[in-house]
Amino acid sequence: MPTIKYYVREGLLPAGELTHRNQASYDETHERRLQLIRALLDVGGMKVAEIADVLAAIDDPARPLHKVLGAAAHRIGGARVASDDSESADARDAVADLIARRGWRTRPSDPAAVDLAQALAALARLGHGGFTDLLDDYADAAERVARADLAYVDRQVAVEERVEGVVVGTVLGEVVLNALRRLAHVDASAGLYGEGSARARAERAEAAAPGAETGP
Amino acid sequence: MPTIKYYVREGLLPAGELTHRNQASYDETHERRLQLIRALLDVGGMKVAEIADVLAAIDDPARPLHKVLGAAAHRIGGARVASDDSESADARDAVADLIARRGWRTRPSDPAAVDLAQALAALARLGHGGFTDLLDDYADAAERVARADLAYVDRQVAVEERVEGVVVGTVLGEVVLNALRRLAHVDASAGLYGEGSARARAERAEAAAPGAETGP
Repeated sequence: MPTIKYYVREGLLPAGELTHRNQASYDETHERRLQLIRALLDVGGMKVAEIADVLAAIDDPARPLHKVLGAAAHRIGGARVASDDSESADARDAVADLIARRGWRTRPSDPAAVDLAQALAALARLGHGGFTDLLDDYADAAERVARADLAYVDRQVAVEERVEGVVVGTVLGEVVLNALRRLAHVDASAGLYGEGSARARAERAEAAAPGAETGP
Repeated sequence: MPTIKYYVREGLLPAGELTHRNQASYDETHERRLQLIRALLDVGGMKVAEIADVLAAIDDPARPLHKVLGAAAHRIGGARVASDDSESADARDAVADLIARRGWRTRPSDPAAVDLAQALAALARLGHGGFTDLLDDYADAAERVARADLAYVDRQVAVEERVEGVVVGTVLGEVVLNALRRLAHVDASAGLYGEGSARARAERAEAAAPGAETGP
C-alpha cells in the first residue's frame, strides 16, 4: 500500500508494527486515521501540510477543548496576501460592522473574517459591491448551520471524538453545504427561469411583440 | 505583464490590440474579464481549465438563460470517482430522499448531488453517519442563501451580467458562506466551551469534586 507509506513518511500516520520484511500491520486506530486523512484529502480538498497541522491539534491532549476547536477551525481556510486598495478597506469595514451587528464573539483578525473580507473585495472589484446587502441572509444561514454543527459535536462523548468531529464537520460539512447551495440554486433557477415560469412566459410575449413596453 | 500573456495563451482572454513591439493595449472589457479570472482563480480557488469552461458559457449568446445558469452551476464542483461500498449506496439514497422531501426540481445525478453523496459517504465511513440528521438544517440554510442569490442575480439587467453574476456569486458566494460558517462556529463555540460558559463552569466543578456524578 504505497499511499500508507506516503502518509507515514509525511508524518500523518504512525508507522505500523513490522511483522514481516516489507510488511507492517495496522490496527483499528490506524484504519480510522487513514479514513480521516482520505476524507480530508479527497472530499475536503485539503493539502497534506494542512492535514498534518489539524491532526497535530487532534492529538495534543494538553490543549483546553475550546482552544483546540478554535485551532482546528482557524487552520482551515487559506491566509492570503492583504490588499491595500479601497475595495479591501471597505470590505474589512463591512466585516467588522457585521461582527459587531451580530454580536459574534470573534474578531476581524480571525482568518475566516480575513477570507470573508477578501471575497467581498473581489466581488466589489467586479462591480458586485451590492453583494454586501446579502450578508445578513448569509449570516442567518451560517448561524443556523453552526448551531446544528455544535449540537452534533456536543453529542460526542469523548473529547478526542469531539475534536475530530469538529475537524470532520468543518471540512466535510463545508462540502455538504456548498453542494446543497448549488442544488438549491438549480431548484430556485428552475422556478425563476425554467419552462412554465412567469419569466419565460414574459420573455416569449416580449419576443412576439418586441418593444411593446417601450412605447408611449 | 506575464500573467495576462499566460491567460491569453490559455484562451481565457482575447489577445489585446498590438500597439508597439511587445506591447498590447487592453480595453475596459479586457480589464473586467481579467478581474473575473483573478477572482475565480485566487479567491474562488478554481482551476484554469474550469475557468475556461465557465467563461465559454458566459460568452455564448446562443444559449437560453436558464441553461447557461445551469451549466455554470454544473461546471463548478469536481466530478469524482463513484464508490461501490454500502456507505456510498446509503448516501445516494439519503440524497434522493432529501431531494424528494424538499420538492427540489433537480435530480440525484446532478453533479452537486453527487458531491453531496460523496461527502456523506466519507462522513459515514468515519462513523459520522448521524450527520445525515443535520441535512434538513443545512438544506434550510442553503435554500435561504439560494433565494437571496437569485433575487440578487435577478436585479442585474443585461443577460450577460446576469450570467456573470451567477458565476461570480456561485464561486465567491461559496467562499463568503464558508467563511461566515467558520466565524459562526467560533462564536457558537465560545458560548458553549469558552470562559464563563455553563460547560466551563460544570467542568471546573467536576474537577473540584471528581466522580460526584457517578456516586449512588
